[in-house]
Amino acid sequence: MLRARVIGNVWATKKVSSIPNGAFLEVEVEPGGSRLIAFDVLGSGVGEAVLVATGSVAASWFEGEAPPIDALIIGSIDETTSH
Amino acid sequence: MLRARVIGNVWATKKVSSIPNGAFLEVEVEPGGSRLIAFDVLGSGVGEAVLVATGSVAASWFEGEAPPIDALIIGSIDETTSH
Amino acid sequence: MLRARVIGNVWATKKVSSIPNGAFLEVEVEPGGSRLIAFDVLGSGVGEAVLVATGSVAASWFEGEAPPIDALIIGSIDETTSH
Amino acid sequence: MLRARVIGNVWATKKVSSIPNGAFLEVEVEPGGSRLIAFDVLGSGVGEAVLVATGSVAASWFEGEAPPIDALIIGSIDETTSH
Amino acid sequence: MLRARVIGNVWATKKVSSIPNGAFLEVEVEPGGSRLIAFDVLGSGVGEAVLVATGSVAASWFEGEAPPIDALIIGSIDETTSH
Repeated sequence: MLRARVIGNVWATKKVSSIPNGAFLEVEVEPGGSRLIAFDVLGSGVGEAVLVATGSVAASWFEGEAPPIDALIIGSIDETTSH
Repeated sequence: MLRARVIGNVWATKKVSSIPNGAFLEVEVEPGGSRLIAFDVLGSGVGEAVLVATGSVAASWFEGEAPPIDALIIGSIDETTSH
Repeated sequence: MLRARVIGNVWATKKVSSIPNGAFLEVEVEPGGSRLIAFDVLGSGVGEAVLVATGSVAASWFEGEAPPIDALIIGSIDETTSH
Repeated sequence: MLRARVIGNVWATKKVSSIPNGAFLEVEVEPGGSRLIAFDVLGSGVGEAVLVATGSVAASWFEGEAPPIDALIIGSIDETTSH
Repeated sequence: MLRARVIGNVWATKKVSSIPNGAFLEVEVEPGGSRLIAFDVLGSGVGEAVLVATGSVAASWFEGEAPPIDALIIGSIDETTSH
C-alpha cells in the first residue's frame, strides 16, 4: 500500500460503464511526491492522510463485477510511528 | 488511475487475435510527463484530459474473454481541483 | 519480492470492510530506500529485515475473499549472501 | 501498453515448463529507453516498432493454462501521430 | 520479463504458510542495476544470467493454490544478441 495525502478532486461525466458510486481523488504519495488518482468510498477529504491499495486488488474489493478501478483508498491514517 | 492527456494515435494492422474495437491512443501522464499507450472506447481526441486505469482491470472491463489490454481510458476529465 | 526493513507502524481506524487481522507496517526497500506499507501477519518488529510480496498475490494468500491488500510480508530474513 | 522497438533476441534452453511456442525478444521502450524482454508470437524482427502489453493480461491471452509470461508483443506499429 | 543476473541468496526460516520448495535468490536487473528477490525452481547459481517473470503470473505457474510469490526465474539465458 502507499501512504498518501488527498490533494484534490477529479470530475468525469463521460465515463465507461460500471464505475461504482464514490469519488475520484488526487493523492500525493508520502514520501516521494508522486501523484495518482485513487477511488474513494470512505468520504475522505482534502488534507487527509490515507492508505491506498493499487492494482487489481482495488477492483476485487467491490461486490459483483470488478470495475476498472486500479487504486482504492482503504483507510484513513490516524497515526504513524517511524524509526 | 493516472491523469493524462491524449497526445496522439497509434495504428497497428498486424495484431494478435482478440483485440476489441477501439483505438490505441498515446497519452502523457500529468504531472510527470511519462508516456504510455491506452486503449480508448469513448472516442477521446487529441488534447483531451482523461483518466487511465492500468493493469489487469483494464482487460477485465471488456465482456467475454479478457483481451491483452493493460491500459484503458475510463473517463474524460471535466474539472480538477488541487490544493 | 522486495528485501526491506521494517521502520514503523501505521494505524487506521476508519477502514473499508474486509481488512483481515494483522498490522500495517512501513518498510524501506533495500537497496534503494523507497518506502511502502506492507501487511504483516508474522508479528514482525521495527528493525527486522523482511521479504515483501507485492500485487494481487498478496491478497490471494488470504483464505476466503481476497482483501484489498497489495503488499504482504511473507518472511523474516535470517541471512543474505551477496556477491 | 508500451511503445517499443525490438533490439535483440534472448535464447534460453533451460526453462520452466509451460512456456509456449514463440520468441523472447529484447525491446527498448520509446520514449524513455528502458528495456524489457517481451514474448513474441507475430514473428517480429529487430528494428520493428511494436506495442507491448505487460502484466497478467499477457499470460491470459494464451489458450489453456496461463504461462509465466508477463510481457507480450500484441501488435506491430504501422504509424504514429503525436502532437 | 526482466533480464537479470543472480547475485546472492536469501534465507528465511520464519515464513507465511504455502511457500513452495525452491530458493529465494537476489538478482540484479540488466541493464539498470535495480535489484529484486526472485523465486527459483531451476537450481540457478550465483553469476547465472536469467529471465525473471514478475507479478501474478509468477504465482500462477505453481500447481494448486497460488503461493505469495511475485517473481519467478523462468529460464537460464544461453545467449543474447542486441543491436
